Amino acid sequence: MKKIAVVLCGCGCMDGSEIHESVMTLLAIDRNGCEYEIFAPDADQYHVINHYTNQVSNEKRNMLVEAARIARGKIFPLPQLKAADFDAVIFPGGFGAAKNLFDYAINGTKAKVMPEVERVVKEFHKARKPIGALCIAPVLIARILGCGTITVGNNPNTIADVEAFGAQHINTKQTEVIADKENMIYTTPCYMLPASISDIADCANNLVKSMLENF
Amino acid sequence: MKKIAVVLCGCGCMDGSEIHESVMTLLAIDRNGCEYEIFAPDADQYHVINHYTNQVSNEKRNMLVEAARIARGKIFPLPQLKAADFDAVIFPGGFGAAKNLFDYAINGTKAKVMPEVERVVKEFHKARKPIGALCIAPVLIARILGCGTITVGNNPNTIADVEAFGAQHINTKQTEVIADKENMIYTTPCYMLPASISDIADCANNLVKSMLENF
Repeated sequence: MKKIAVVLCGCGCMDGSEIHESVMTLLAIDRNGCEYEIFAPDADQYHVINHYTNQVSNEKRNMLVEAARIARGKIFPLPQLKAADFDAVIFPGGFGAAKNLFDYAINGTKAKVMPEVERVVKEFHKARKPIGALCIAPVLIARILGCGTITVGNNPNTIADVEAFGAQHINTKQTEVIADKENMIYTTPCYMLPASISDIADCANNLVKSMLENF
Repeated sequence: MKKIAVVLCGCGCMDGSEIHESVMTLLAIDRNGCEYEIFAPDADQYHVINHYTNQVSNEKRNMLVEAARIARGKIFPLPQLKAADFDAVIFPGGFGAAKNLFDYAINGTKAKVMPEVERVVKEFHKARKPIGALCIAPVLIARILGCGTITVGNNPNTIADVEAFGAQHINTKQTEVIADKENMIYTTPCYMLPASISDIADCANNLVKSMLENF
């Protein structure tokens, strides 16, 4: 049975991992006969957003502790994730991925990446094991690897940034997957395009299926 | 297009709504060609649990604000939910449902129900509109209505309590639905039995399909 690592960074689209994308990724892995383990950095989120009012909240929350809500407690600190133990890795999106895993939402093309996240992505890339990314998370992969062909939907500003990082971009329709088999990078737009919750389930399922063709 | 209300009470299996059950309920509603709107009480959770350590945390969190994470911000305070505006209502589970919507997790058969939750359930029941409940949430419906045939899986203590509330219980296997067409109550075990995430998706989908047969 293939084993896929899923990297989260909190619990909520505005300050952590997008919940629907995260849950649908787990569902897609299970539906396609694979196992998953979930990881997150053991560090504070960039900030906390009240998702009802959309205002910044005066709280501190930890990515690992909050992501444990999605994982129902079964989650491990990111340093424990070794490419050698898994067949592939997937990064769900959410605005929080672009605030926590790297600071692209704040610093754009000057974005800095969390060292542990960079280590993980480079380790899977070097081992030629598939890397999947949903929504905004493909920008993280482009930032780290500086190569590859990805999709983030069709937003011109994001596409320009992706190209500035050294990756190529292909516009996609909702639920499509861009499979860069040379670089083993698999991406799909999710909430970077208008989406129903069924679209998110289809994106995640198409992504996992595409990755499985290339193990 | 049929319109189904979903009632949440936070975001996390230990202190709020179970995330997988909540997301799969939304997915099942969408997949079956219906619309949803999401509601939650605008009040503090009973408590906050750190889902990584499983310890009580010295924080206060609001059910509506936290459930907004699952709803991506599109959520309404429970008093705005009127049975007249919807075709059905669904209550996902989670330990939090038995701490927040009523206090069954603390007070067992002496459980008190939040008045707004009682009002909503009685309104749908009186209007003869389907009420769906997943996991532990069927106990809430039994507590409020004191009638009906439901399932919570096969736990003998929970079954005894359900019967003390005046409802009947049927043991089920995972992903089965008990459809009490007379009382318009639809229930399925989810995480009350050992479950994969695919089981939760199947439970939610079977529940919505069963409810739709009886609109």
